[in-house]
This record gives sequence, structure tokens and C-alpha cells, in this order.
Amino acid sequence: MIQRKLEITYRPYDKSTRIPPGTTLFSAAHWIGLPIDSTCGGRGTCGKCKVHVIQGSLEATTADRKQLRVEEIDAGWRLSCQAKVYEDTVCEVPELLRVPKAATMGVNRLVLLDPNVRKAYVELTEPSLEDQRSDLERLRDALTAEGHDMKADLQVLSRLPSILRAADFKVTAVLGGDQLIAVEPGDTREMSYGVAFDLGTTTVVGTLMNLRTGMAEAVRSTLNGQAPFGADVISRISHAMTGAAALSELRETVLKSMNGILGELYAESGIARENVYEAVVVGNATMLHLLLGVDPAPIAVTPFTPAFREPLYLEAGAVGLEIHPHGRVQTLPLLGAYVGADIIGGIVATGLAREDKLRVFVDVGTNGEIVLGSSTRVLATAAPAGPAFEGSQIQCGMRATEGAIEGVILTDRVELQVIGGDITPKGICGSGLVDTVAQLRVAGLVDVSGRMRSREEVPEHPLSDRLIMVDGVRAFLLSEGVFLSQRDIRALQFGKGSIATGIKVLMDVMGVATDDLREVLLGGSFGSYLNPESARIIGLVPPVPVDNILSVGNTAGEGAKMTLLSFRERQVAFELPEAIEYVELSGRADFNDSFVSVLQFPELDSL
Amino acid sequence: MIQRKLEITYRPYDKSTRIPPGTTLFSAAHWIGLPIDSTCGGRGTCGKCKVHVIQGSLEATTADRKQLRVEEIDAGWRLSCQAKVYEDTVCEVPELLRVPKAATMGVNRLVLLDPNVRKAYVELTEPSLEDQRSDLERLRDALTAEGHDMKADLQVLSRLPSILRAADFKVTAVLGGDQLIAVEPGDTREMSYGVAFDLGTTTVVGTLMNLRTGMAEAVRSTLNGQAPFGADVISRISHAMTGAAALSELRETVLKSMNGILGELYAESGIARENVYEAVVVGNATMLHLLLGVDPAPIAVTPFTPAFREPLYLEAGAVGLEIHPHGRVQTLPLLGAYVGADIIGGIVATGLAREDKLRVFVDVGTNGEIVLGSSTRVLATAAPAGPAFEGSQIQCGMRATEGAIEGVILTDRVELQVIGGDITPKGICGSGLVDTVAQLRVAGLVDVSGRMRSREEVPEHPLSDRLIMVDGVRAFLLSEGVFLSQRDIRALQFGKGSIATGIKVLMDVMGVATDDLREVLLGGSFGSYLNPESARIIGLVPPVPVDNILSVGNTAGEGAKMTLLSFRERQVAFELPEAIEYVELSGRADFNDSFVSVLQFPELDSL
Repeated sequence: MIQRKLEITYRPYDKSTRIPPGTTLFSAAHWIGLPIDSTCGGRGTCGKCKVHVIQGSLEATTADRKQLRVEEIDAGWRLSCQAKVYEDTVCEVPELLRVPKAATMGVNRLVLLDPNVRKAYVELTEPSLEDQRSDLERLRDALTAEGHDMKADLQVLSRLPSILRAADFKVTAVLGGDQLIAVEPGDTREMSYGVAFDLGTTTVVGTLMNLRTGMAEAVRSTLNGQAPFGADVISRISHAMTGAAALSELRETVLKSMNGILGELYAESGIARENVYEAVVVGNATMLHLLLGVDPAPIAVTPFTPAFREPLYLEAGAVGLEIHPHGRVQTLPLLGAYVGADIIGGIVATGLAREDKLRVFVDVGTNGEIVLGSSTRVLATAAPAGPAFEGSQIQCGMRATEGAIEGVILTDRVELQVIGGDITPKGICGSGLVDTVAQLRVAGLVDVSGRMRSREEVPEHPLSDRLIMVDGVRAFLLSEGVFLSQRDIRALQFGKGSIATGIKVLMDVMGVATDDLREVLLGGSFGSYLNPESARIIGLVPPVPVDNILSVGNTAGEGAKMTLLSFRERQVAFELPEAIEYVELSGRADFNDSFVSVLQFPELDSL
Repeated sequence: MIQRKLEITYRPYDKSTRIPPGTTLFSAAHWIGLPIDSTCGGRGTCGKCKVHVIQGSLEATTADRKQLRVEEIDAGWRLSCQAKVYEDTVCEVPELLRVPKAATMGVNRLVLLDPNVRKAYVELTEPSLEDQRSDLERLRDALTAEGHDMKADLQVLSRLPSILRAADFKVTAVLGGDQLIAVEPGDTREMSYGVAFDLGTTTVVGTLMNLRTGMAEAVRSTLNGQAPFGADVISRISHAMTGAAALSELRETVLKSMNGILGELYAESGIARENVYEAVVVGNATMLHLLLGVDPAPIAVTPFTPAFREPLYLEAGAVGLEIHPHGRVQTLPLLGAYVGADIIGGIVATGLAREDKLRVFVDVGTNGEIVLGSSTRVLATAAPAGPAFEGSQIQCGMRATEGAIEGVILTDRVELQVIGGDITPKGICGSGLVDTVAQLRVAGLVDVSGRMRSREEVPEHPLSDRLIMVDGVRAFLLSEGVFLSQRDIRALQFGKGSIATGIKVLMDVMGVATDDLREVLLGGSFGSYLNPESARIIGLVPPVPVDNILSVGNTAGEGAKMTLLSFRERQVAFELPEAIEYVELSGRADFNDSFVSVLQFPELDSL
């Protein structure tokens, strides 16, 4: 899986890049912001992306033979979108897209706007006795002439005759890939939208994207309506296993949450459902199984096998998502039962598998998903972290909502940062928990083993009066009625120990040390709120300089948006599972061994 | 469109054949009964059909590169199913199917059993921590190993985990092409069925076929439930044009007829709906549009354009046909608004486009569809014949049911052949009409212009007392209350004149004369019942020797069955529209000119 990088040079721009073997000349150019011209977006059907290969040999593909003349092929011209390179290559690019639209998304990723959904306005010649092509052929021929392949299903076909004639044969075809989603009267190219869904176990976020401009038109989030069936994926699966009705119920519940979001997005933006043609959905394996009504039971028991891992491209009607009735729903691939499409989205958003520098990406939650790598090699795993990070099973724990302590600084007094501002704290959320424990370590009130000191042990400490006993257990009082107990510290130790061990196993497998790590990326709906310094102090992440620990936000959602806006990025996402080595922790001796050793906190002077 | 035939020789069998350019080595071998080995049925995925090309050059295809080693390709090995030939070729076939099943169907066509629906029994390795492939990948990998490509949709996917586990991972995959239709516990390969539908304007015929043996398990027919909305396609379309509700009504009505047939087929054969995976449907353009709920209005008005002509492969559930819920419905392609999938079926069943001899195939009905050609060139057209041949708008006309006069011989007395045997005749059906007019011509009671003689003109004729007057119009009395009037003869002249003109136009376009015609084939639910001699006497068909006028039966239905049983024959049907030149008669000066001249009957001594 370790691949030598190839050097690709594009003339006359003299831009170069180093890419893994098997990448197309078209994709590699796009990644460095060199937008090779294309109507079909790299599907090999329009012929516009041809380049002249000057150095390096590339076999002619079927698409080359179809789109190029024999003399061109012999002279070394190739369709760059089909040209996968396996040696160092120099090529000449005759034409760039004139005004490429691009946006910086995810973690400093430049995304060229090239959505899978495309609109083509065509003025068809009307039928005559000399030209009795069927309506479908007439439309297909016009689209082919513009470089688009097209497949139509019954729903679009059934209304085609009346639409064509009512519109005097001037229509806009809406294509999702090569699927004909709709045929609209007149020129409707200005109205093209899609929605990116981050389907979390706890929270569902939907972003309505303008596919013409690449801008977000509206964002809405809501709690996943499945919450009453359990906070984590295992309890959801347990409920699903009680029978077909329960599985349906879970499906309908999450659809209700998602369709609720869609309704709000339409209301806020004034955009019609009929102009939203595609939804990209990311989420963990369980969430995607439940959304699609697929039995998730085998995910919960060893050997943890999902029903599917591949990306699915489905009819919105069949899924039940209320976008255009013949629109399409795209899920990103899963790496395994516990490294889902949300993590694939995260890898897209961070560019982790594409850049030279070695990084580790951690999505902290009930499961800690960990990805370590660079463009050379990528490893991934999932570590069971327990509910501590989500603020669950912590005595004064709560979700990160109003009244939650989300930040703590201990000096000679206690400074609290509370969600909602200057209000009375009601509890501690995950980031507050991590902060508190880290600050207690720094203040000398928790030792390296995790043991909290008693008031008697440190009578001179300015915060010693905060050291209390609750039901016979030591605790630290943060605010009236809100405290952190010794038991809570143990829960956090379990969680951080599991994730830290997962990171360590991956680093060992790859044969790298902390010094080799350029960055630690904290992502996911929870990880992003962690204080990097605190994460380092409790030993959740390797002891890299604190400036190299970055909160990268909702990378799953960013990945969904990027793959909605760019067909190229989507292709990259599709190919990720092939390129990533999954390391299963269950049953690994080194996981269990390391686990015990990292339950402790790091010595402060080692940081 | 005139193509030089190519000579193909297969070693070591020393069988040769002459085929049109573009045919694959695999198909051409099958057509002469040489069953080259294949698991995938010629889809390029199993690699078993490779042949060694000894003479003739064939470019390597993508499938060749995937399935064969580089040395093999260099040595001239090719997958015969992908190898389209464009020059005379000699090849060596290493392996034939051991026990190919074949049946003679249609008009002496040898059909090798190779259905599009295939069942593959697989015993999957169970998941383990070392092998965490998803259920779908596990199944796909096993099928790929056996040479099958596979695509799954949501309906099959959703039940996959429970089916696999309940069956201890021993299952039978049902594939329709590369679509996964079902996954069944255990080995169910013995149970594989499909249904062939001939969807006529008047009559619907369904045949339940055993895809393992190629035998018909049961046949049922019924009147098309749309009859109350009009006898012919134009009146059906008129009804459909009254609004969306009417279109739905027509769709539901024909579905009810077809599902009624299915119910009877299941009851008679004892075969379960769940084991019927595919339906092939042929019919005219209007019937297929109405079945699929596609607006047929433009078919009825100039320039007569259907919404689609291509073959459609649709989910049975979406169509509404009650076979396996995730089964598939295949329609054959249309050549135009008035030369439908029934005629494509007829061309498959007669082999008209594949044999050397020049033949004309006529499907006689309200429209006369005419196909003239051989393997060198094929022309087709549709001639408006009016309702006479169906027994409609004839004073004593009736459909071919009990009590209808279907055959007539005039000597010195009147001999009648009546459907139902020795019963009182109630009316005349189309074949009886043609017979009566032909016999009246022979008896000298109708002259060359179609004028019926009066009793006064031929007082000595033994049948002169049969010459009567009805409401002031001359008529010939066949039986008590059943007569043929002068007006009826005029209707028949219009109908036969139209068809005869259509044949003449095609022969003129092709530059052939009657002497070049080897056979005249009369097909369709009506044409098959015509007396060839009578057809010749009234000038419906060219004056070839009567032995060369053949009734070929329900060729549409035969074509449906053949394409159900053989993926190869289906491919041939798909490619027919490309190979056939459609001649539009409307607006052709030579059609209108000829028409007047052929309204007359032929002189008897010219026959």
C-alpha cells in the first residue's frame, strides 16, 4: 500500500504536482487549481479535456478512441479525465476553463465547482415526417452533442411528450451523473440546488447549497429524532433488532428529522423543493443503514460487518427524502462498521490522504475514529471511548446546550465559560470536562494516576475549599450544585485512554513517532470544541506542540458539501476505501496492552 | 445500408457462416448452433468464450484487457462475445458448452437457451475479524468469481443481512442482466421462470416459460380490457388525450388484463409469483406507451413520433406487473409510431433480417405492418388498412369467435367453415371475408374492378339465387341472415390496396421484383388465419407461387418468448432498429399514385 509518488508537470503553465499512481491527469490538475476545460465534468463524454502527453506513456482508453481522431491518439493526445498515470508525466494543456468557480472549503481545500448535478438547456428541432426520432432520442441526441450521456427512467419519460410540446421543444435537462432527473420547460439553468446532510447519531445538520455559485443558501440543524431510542448507535441497533416494525420506526423517525430540516431550509431560502436535485448524506454506518431501512444488527456484534460499504446513488423517492421527487440521494462510502461515511467526509475535507505531511485526524465521540496518514499511506481505526466525551454518564454531565460549562480555567480561583453567557451553570459538557480535568492536573489537584487529592492533603491550596465529598466520593466543586467527581475522572481516563491507544497502535503499525506528526486534527461535532491544550494535557492526543493541534470543525458536513459541489471530490471519496488500511482493534494484543499503560495521565514536564 | 456479407469460419469444427459486419463471433456461432462456452452469457465478464483469431484482425477491447493476459491478447486471443468482426475471419474455438439446451421456435429458428435471468448458487465464507467485508461485497465477490457482474438496489439490499444469516451464507442470487433481483436462501436454481407477453390492441397473450428447460408451462389469453375505449389504437389515444385520469385508467385497465393472465398462469402451473423474475412484453407503440403510462398523443398526429423507441428494462413494481416484486420488465424496441415491438418480435421469430433469401413479412390488421428484406438489407413500413380485416365495419362482420364464418368455398354450392363446428353462422370474420371475396372473383361473380354482378346479369350461374339486394345495395347471401355486400367489398379493396401498395413501395425502394421474392410470410393474430390462396387472388400479396405464401402464426409472441429465453436473441432485437430502414408512406407521391392503381383486383389469368 506504500506508493511511490509520481511527478506530473503541466505545460505551458509549468505547474507541477506529486500524486499517487492511478490518479488521472484531470484530477491532479484540479487539485492544484488548474481547471482543465470540460463540459461533462470528467466522464469522458465531451472530449474537451484532451491534453498532449509529451513525456510518459499512457495507453489509449475506449473513451479516447471514441472522442479523438486516430491521428490525435497516435500523436499522444489523451482525454485527461480518463488518463490514469503510472509514471512521471509531462503534458501540455491546450485550454483551461475560462472562469472556474472555486471555493475554499473544509480545511483549506480549494474546491472547483463542478457538481454531479448539471443542467443543460437545449433547443430541439421539432419532429417532422423526415425526422421521426422519438422524444427521448431527440433529447438524448441533443445532450450527446453537448457531451452528456443520459439514462432516463419511467417517471421522467412518462411526462416527456407533453413537456416538450408545451415548451416548444426548448427545455432544460437536469442530469445527476448520467441519470435524467427532470426535463423543465425553458431555460432554468439559474436554479440548481442540492443539500448536504451530516446525519449524526445525536444531531442532524442540513445545508442547502447553490450549485451555480457554490454558496450555502441556508443551514439548519436539529436533534436526531431517534434519540428516545437510545443515545448511542448500540442502543439504536438494539431497538432495531426488536423487529421489522422497530426498524421501520427508526427509519421514519430519522426521515422526519431530515424532512423537517428540508422544510425549514425551503422556507428560509425561498427555494422550491423541485429545484433541489441531489442530497449527499454522510453519517456513521448505523445511521446510514437505519436511514435506508437496512438491517443494522450485524454491525453490533463481532465480527462487525455492515450490509454495504460502497457509496449508494438512490432515488430520493425510494429513500423518502423530500427533495425533487425524482432527485437522487448519494451516500459516501463506509470504511467499516465503525469508520463511516462521516469519516470519509472528514478525510475529504482535511485532504489528509492527499497532502505530503503526516497528520492524525481524530473524531472524538462515543467512538473515537482515528485516521493517520498522508498521501503516501493512510491507516484508520475506531476506538470505543464510552460516553464521557459526550457529557453522558458524568454525574453533572449534560449535552453542550445552554447552561453547560464548556470551558474552565483554574488559577487561584475558578473561571467558567458557560454556554449562553452570564447565566447560572447547570452542568458540564464534554469540552468542560476535559478542561476541568486538565486544569486540575495543572493545579496539582489530580495526580498522574488520576487520583484527586483531598482537602486534607492540600490545605494550603487556594482552591482547597472546592475539594468536597459527595456520597463518600471525592469531588471538585465548579459552581453551586455542579461538581466533578473522582468517578467522572475515571470515565474520562477510560475514554481518552482508548483513543490514545488507538492512535498509538496506528503509529506503531505505520512505524512513526510523535516527532513525525506534523498536525493533530480534532474533528466531529464534539472534537471541534475541545481545547487543544487540554486535550494534550490529559494525553488524549500525542504531545505535539500545541499550535499543531487544530480544531477542524464539522469535517463530515464539509465533506458532504464538497462532494455535492464537486464531482471530482466525490470520485476521490469513492476511491478512499481502496486506499485506506483499516486496523481492527478488537482482539489485538497490543491494543489491550497499551490501553492499561495509557490510562494514566502524562507527566506534566513531559509535555 | 447495403452491406457486404463476411465469411466466418470456426475451427476445428469447420463450420462457416456469412454475417453482416458488426456481428460478434459469439453471436454468429450461436446462430449456426455452435454454442461457445460462457457463464455470463456474452457480457464480457466471465472470460470463458475466448477464441483464437487465426485470420482477420480484431482490436482488443476493454473486456479483453480485463479478462485476458497480455500474451494471450498479443497471440490473437479475443473474447468472442465482444469481438465484432468487420472482415472475413477464421478462428479456433477451444471449448463448446457441454450440453447446450436449444429449442426450435418461431419460424424454424434454433434458439440456444441462455436467458437474461440467471441464478447463481454461492456458499459465502462467513465474516470474521480478519474478513470484515460487507454483506454486499461478500456476495459480489463470489458472483464476480463465477463471472457475473452485479448491481443491487435498495429493496434487495435492505433484507440482505437477515437472509444471509438465516441461510448460513448459502444462497442463490437471481440476476436479471447485472441487476440483482433477489437473494434466496439455499439452492433454488431449479425454479426459474419468466413470462412472455404479446400485448395486442385486441388480445393479450401471456406464456409462462420455464427458463431452465425452455418449455412453456402455461399459456393464457384474454381480451385487452381497454376494448370499451375503442377497437383501434387511434380511439385509445383519443381517450387518453381527454386527460391524465383517462391515461391512468387505460394503464390500469391493461394492467388488470395482464395481471389477470398472470394469476391464471400461476394457478394453472402451480408456479409461485416469486419465482417469475422477468417479463418480456411486445406490442405496438401505443400499447407499450399506455402500459407504461406514457402520453401517446403525438403518435396519433403527424409527424407521428413516439416518446421512446428504445427497449426499456424496468422494475416490475414500477410498471405494476405482478411477477416477483423486484423482477424486471423488458420491452423490445419500436421502429416507429406504427411499426412496434410486435414487429421487432416478428423479425426475430422469422429470422427475416438474418437469412439470405429475400422475404416479405406482413402483419395484417387495422394497420398492415410490412417488412421486406434479408440479411443484406431490410425495409419496413406501415400501411393504414382500415378495420375490414378485423371484421369490423363489415355489415355482417364479427371477430373470429364462435359462429364466425372463417372459410368459404364456392362451387355450385356454398361450403362454409364456421368457428365452433357445425353451428349456425352468426357473421363473417376477416379470413372469411377474404375467402368470400376471392371465391366470388373465381366464380365470376365479382369483376376485376370489385363490382358485384346482379342476379339479372348471371341468371344461369348456379349461385345466382344467392345474389340479393339489401337496402338497395347488392349482396351475396352466405347463410341465413349472413351476407357480404358490395360496400363490404369496397372496404376490403381499400384495406388490401393499402397493404399491397406498401409492399410495392418497399419493393420499388429496394429495386426488386416479385420474382426476387422467395417467400411471403403472413403473421400477426389475424394474418396467420388468412388462406394464402385467397390472399393472392385478392391481390393482398404479390403473385408468388402459393406454396411460398406461409402463415407464420403469432410471431410477436414467439419473438417475446425467444428474447425471454435467449439473451443473444434479445441483443439481436435491440440492434434491429439500427439495421432497418423505415419508409414513411404518408406524403409519398408514389404511395398515393400506386394506391389507386391497386384498388382493383388482379386479373385471374395473371396469377
